[in-house]
Amino acid sequence: MRKLSVALLGSSGVVGQRFVEMLNGHPWFKLSVLTGEKTAGKRYGEAVNWLFSTNIPLEVYGKKIVRLNTHEIDADLVFSSLPSVVAKEAEMNLSRRGLPVISNASSHRLNPVVPLVIPEVNPEHLELIEVQRAKFKSDGFIATDPNCSTVGLAMTLKPIHDLYSVRKVVVSTYQAVSGAGYPGVPSLEIIDNLVPHIHGEEEKIKAETRKILGEINGNRVVNKEIDIEAMCCRVPVVDGHLENVYLETEAEVNVEEVEDAMSSFEGEPQKLKLPTAPSKPIIVRHEDNRPQPRLDRSSGNPPGMPVVVGRVRRGDKKNSLLYTLLVHNTIRGAAGCAVLLAELLVKHQYII
Amino acid sequence: MRKLSVALLGSSGVVGQRFVEMLNGHPWFKLSVLTGEKTAGKRYGEAVNWLFSTNIPLEVYGKKIVRLNTHEIDADLVFSSLPSVVAKEAEMNLSRRGLPVISNASSHRLNPVVPLVIPEVNPEHLELIEVQRAKFKSDGFIATDPNCSTVGLAMTLKPIHDLYSVRKVVVSTYQAVSGAGYPGVPSLEIIDNLVPHIHGEEEKIKAETRKILGEINGNRVVNKEIDIEAMCCRVPVVDGHLENVYLETEAEVNVEEVEDAMSSFEGEPQKLKLPTAPSKPIIVRHEDNRPQPRLDRSSGNPPGMPVVVGRVRRGDKKNSLLYTLLVHNTIRGAAGCAVLLAELLVKHQYII
Amino acid sequence: MRKLSVALLGSSGVVGQRFVEMLNGHPWFKLSVLTGEKTAGKRYGEAVNWLFSTNIPLEVYGKKIVRLNTHEIDADLVFSSLPSVVAKEAEMNLSRRGLPVISNASSHRLNPVVPLVIPEVNPEHLELIEVQRAKFKSDGFIATDPNCSTVGLAMTLKPIHDLYSVRKVVVSTYQAVSGAGYPGVPSLEIIDNLVPHIHGEEEKIKAETRKILGEINGNRVVNKEIDIEAMCCRVPVVDGHLENVYLETEAEVNVEEVEDAMSSFEGEPQKLKLPTAPSKPIIVRHEDNRPQPRLDRSSGNPPGMPVVVGRVRRGDKKNSLLYTLLVHNTIRGAAGCAVLLAELLVKHQYII
Amino acid sequence: MRKLSVALLGSSGVVGQRFVEMLNGHPWFKLSVLTGEKTAGKRYGEAVNWLFSTNIPLEVYGKKIVRLNTHEIDADLVFSSLPSVVAKEAEMNLSRRGLPVISNASSHRLNPVVPLVIPEVNPEHLELIEVQRAKFKSDGFIATDPNCSTVGLAMTLKPIHDLYSVRKVVVSTYQAVSGAGYPGVPSLEIIDNLVPHIHGEEEKIKAETRKILGEINGNRVVNKEIDIEAMCCRVPVVDGHLENVYLETEAEVNVEEVEDAMSSFEGEPQKLKLPTAPSKPIIVRHEDNRPQPRLDRSSGNPPGMPVVVGRVRRGDKKNSLLYTLLVHNTIRGAAGCAVLLAELLVKHQYII
Repeated sequence: MRKLSVALLGSSGVVGQRFVEMLNGHPWFKLSVLTGEKTAGKRYGEAVNWLFSTNIPLEVYGKKIVRLNTHEIDADLVFSSLPSVVAKEAEMNLSRRGLPVISNASSHRLNPVVPLVIPEVNPEHLELIEVQRAKFKSDGFIATDPNCSTVGLAMTLKPIHDLYSVRKVVVSTYQAVSGAGYPGVPSLEIIDNLVPHIHGEEEKIKAETRKILGEINGNRVVNKEIDIEAMCCRVPVVDGHLENVYLETEAEVNVEEVEDAMSSFEGEPQKLKLPTAPSKPIIVRHEDNRPQPRLDRSSGNPPGMPVVVGRVRRGDKKNSLLYTLLVHNTIRGAAGCAVLLAELLVKHQYII
Repeated sequence: MRKLSVALLGSSGVVGQRFVEMLNGHPWFKLSVLTGEKTAGKRYGEAVNWLFSTNIPLEVYGKKIVRLNTHEIDADLVFSSLPSVVAKEAEMNLSRRGLPVISNASSHRLNPVVPLVIPEVNPEHLELIEVQRAKFKSDGFIATDPNCSTVGLAMTLKPIHDLYSVRKVVVSTYQAVSGAGYPGVPSLEIIDNLVPHIHGEEEKIKAETRKILGEINGNRVVNKEIDIEAMCCRVPVVDGHLENVYLETEAEVNVEEVEDAMSSFEGEPQKLKLPTAPSKPIIVRHEDNRPQPRLDRSSGNPPGMPVVVGRVRRGDKKNSLLYTLLVHNTIRGAAGCAVLLAELLVKHQYII
Repeated sequence: MRKLSVALLGSSGVVGQRFVEMLNGHPWFKLSVLTGEKTAGKRYGEAVNWLFSTNIPLEVYGKKIVRLNTHEIDADLVFSSLPSVVAKEAEMNLSRRGLPVISNASSHRLNPVVPLVIPEVNPEHLELIEVQRAKFKSDGFIATDPNCSTVGLAMTLKPIHDLYSVRKVVVSTYQAVSGAGYPGVPSLEIIDNLVPHIHGEEEKIKAETRKILGEINGNRVVNKEIDIEAMCCRVPVVDGHLENVYLETEAEVNVEEVEDAMSSFEGEPQKLKLPTAPSKPIIVRHEDNRPQPRLDRSSGNPPGMPVVVGRVRRGDKKNSLLYTLLVHNTIRGAAGCAVLLAELLVKHQYII
Repeated sequence: MRKLSVALLGSSGVVGQRFVEMLNGHPWFKLSVLTGEKTAGKRYGEAVNWLFSTNIPLEVYGKKIVRLNTHEIDADLVFSSLPSVVAKEAEMNLSRRGLPVISNASSHRLNPVVPLVIPEVNPEHLELIEVQRAKFKSDGFIATDPNCSTVGLAMTLKPIHDLYSVRKVVVSTYQAVSGAGYPGVPSLEIIDNLVPHIHGEEEKIKAETRKILGEINGNRVVNKEIDIEAMCCRVPVVDGHLENVYLETEAEVNVEEVEDAMSSFEGEPQKLKLPTAPSKPIIVRHEDNRPQPRLDRSSGNPPGMPVVVGRVRRGDKKNSLLYTLLVHNTIRGAAGCAVLLAELLVKHQYII
């Protein structure tokens, strides 16, 4: 199979770098265009402050970064990790020009004709692509992956919701600094400290989770009416968002049944054996002090693609459940989710 | 006024050191006995690994630490920061010998005849002392202060409960390492990491909050029937427990009213102008990113005695409320609460 | 005494904020002008991301920040914590207009007619002010304080140099993130990490130390010919630069004599009892594991003004010495040193 | 080839766990005995607080830990990561009983008949084994690897010493918390802090480096007479010791020559292609801000076996050199160095 050419928008940020890392040696995709704003005109290896302990892939090192010009970009598909302000128009332009855009930006996530998809959870939402195509008379489209914290929450809610129907969720997050990008959180603000506010995050978790768990009805998604409250906090951890989840269900909860449903949960990516699909999307741990960011954020294969869950327990009420989850925010919560989504789009022939 | 002589049990741990710091120059109390297990026989200044940026008070520096012997200890009152396993019997023995014991240990907190008191919240529970005295035929007694996380929670719930009647609480904690004592949490476990479990903590928060908000009925406390769920996590912060609180009330919530009630909240310590009473037990901040442990844990006067609250907001439902609180775990959450309680006991002539 | 009016250039950065904090309630100085670039036009309390646990002083909170205009600024003296690129011309302009400029920027530190002064170490260098005045035919002048790491090094070298004549110094630094300003070091780069390079720092330490220990000869400073090598590293600490110092002297070293000389070291600020002078400029500790940044950075009175030294010991060679020092980088190493210098300038009637 | 059976003494500590990890799947060695003190009698997987993000190897998980009994242990070779107090006698007993003991403990390192070896640096010191055998009339022996900081220093000094003859070294260390074992450094002591003292470390670096660079003369090692001063500091980093090195040489220094000599440096392990030998024992980086612990500690293959060097530069004097090195303290600085040494002993038929 010929590899599909990929344009990566916003290639020098934290998530951009993760895309570069995850696309290195990808069996289907090949990075051909890298855009950057401050870094435009320079070679990737010289312009980028590489943040990982891996080395910059050799074939990307010498590639020249170009300025984003939506009229010129040519590729089989586009990954966008642009800042939201820029993303909105750029992604729209590219999709109208006929390009498939898989975006990690928040700009279009809540647009009723744009699918917001976790490949294991709601692949059927991709039907909205046809709605987009009809509406805009273009083969191109925008598909989005959720906010990093939402990915962990929605993915673990899915098997529970299928069992008992979830009616209320209260989630507290412990979010790593890499979630704020680069340079992101000043060290002066977070050493020996916590910041109990992340701009827009709580609203995103609420709205996006409802959309992901919603159902397609005709040409739009009907959000799931779940009562969700989120309280978000930045913590001095490099990578890996931890979330403490409390929820209430319609039916009575059985902890063993929940753990089994999570452990055996899989979706299309697993059935289709997509290259970036982890064999288990949810890893359930039984120690009383896991998951922990440093120990568990790189679990699974590809590392960081599963969500790790622990401390599953019932509350005092029979229809209440508590658990702790960990999602690698820049892998499963961003670049990894987008790559997996692109793979699914290829298999479903939305990208050809 | 002659100063009352104080015996401090467990004087070399983190909380023991806070007691030493807070009793330094106290107008009513004077440290006369210091006990320690591994440090017994040595001078305090030489035996103790002093953890604060202050210096060890000069008059304590040269004092000899003695082994805990409940038959010999003589003082007007006793502060206990003993480990629970040792505390249980030792505190019982001392109180039967006629000594007033104010304890920061968890052993007797849920005992139905032992008052569990935050001076601003439930001073009326001190009546249980008479029940103890009658039962054990001794002038001595045990009075306890709550677990560090519980102090912050119960103190902020009180004014809300008085307004709207709280029926459900979901709290997620972000707890500092000093809460685990010394040596406590190994650095190897918490740098760039979180540990989502603190042994016994969630149970304590649930049970103690219900008791504190409960009412005296005859010779016992009737716990308040509130549905409480707690999810506790250790974070890489030196001092100051942050808590994200979600709650539901019987009556509809008005945010301004809540903030006013918290800001103007005061109790007996303020009315009696007790030496360790902060002028405002609850400080409400209006920035969207406060409270923060490093910036807010030493607020007020004495520093660390108020609980700092921020981000007060209503949830999607009219009878739901969210806020973030910060309590200095070894001051208001431990030594400071105990000293304030002792001051209240003196004013009420339980200690003479 | 009428208070002298102060213009503070670059008031919203980390060092600018320290100036605001240290000038609060100052007996001689009164903040009258605050400049800022991005914050210009807003009130200080609303524009500034205040980084300390203290509150913004009330009288500064509502003050409007103005854009830096060197033709308009009017004050009895000027403190500059401008970035070096801006500082160079602005400070020159202001001094030519007749204003005394006390600068924390590096731009003019090595200028042969500009005094680079630690008030306790080389107050005699202030004579250069007359050289400036003559050269530029203006009453104004520029006086500078050294780089934060240099302050700690030069201040502790002084009493040793007076005893034994220092001929070689090798210093390794452990520098706090506040030294890089705000936003400064991204947390993503420093959590669970070290960065063994700080742009320009090693050169500054070498050149500035030689100038400070140099002697006035006619109308210029003759640098002290000491062989200095510096190796600088950023560490995940909020405030307080630690330095490991190895040195060789002409005469044989006696540790007790060194500790005595350091402990009893004082200079003009102590003799003149300047308001910001610590009673002891150097505090010598005798524990084997001090100084430590968190415990010792706020030592003394005013807190953070002394340099704290520990582990003074001889090397294998008789004329070698090792010690560890800690300097609060934004207090003694920046704003505090500048305020003390201004006080000295007032006493010497350079500022009237 | 039949795998050699290995007894691992002190298997549950930090270094013990690294041994378990590095011996997993080893082509020549097979773990057969695991000792532990507090963990004796339990299965490894249940007793040990596993500190890494890998999982405990399956074949070790269910193995029972035994109490150390030097009369009973039977294996082809013994790795010791015992605490020094216990190591001294135990290792002596085992070697007299005929067992080859490769020790990471400090007890025997400076014993004149015990080789202290970095396989790439001084393999010829293994001749001392014959001296031991003759002296104690036993086929067994003790061979030791150096202190973690010493490994990084001595390995990088070797190629420089061969070029120019090193006469003086001043080293400042920035040591990770894992170097203190488990539980090791309390988090309360190191968050937002540094501890400028590590018991015995400076003496070890000085004495061990001189021995490693020394030469065999008859039946003993003649230490190299280099003037070494070391200043050690604990920093809030999980793994990876960084060291700032200043040195003076007899001959004039050429930086490019030094970098080449380091980059091309190899020893017997590389020539013999030992299983745990990295292809390059020293990796030289040319960025101005590397090595950094989090980014570089797992460099090479096996990860963590090379020492990473950066910022190689000449001092002001022609015969002075400065550089920064990073050594993974529990891999190349402990377990990895010992495993590599055992491999070398096998190839040289000291272990059969």
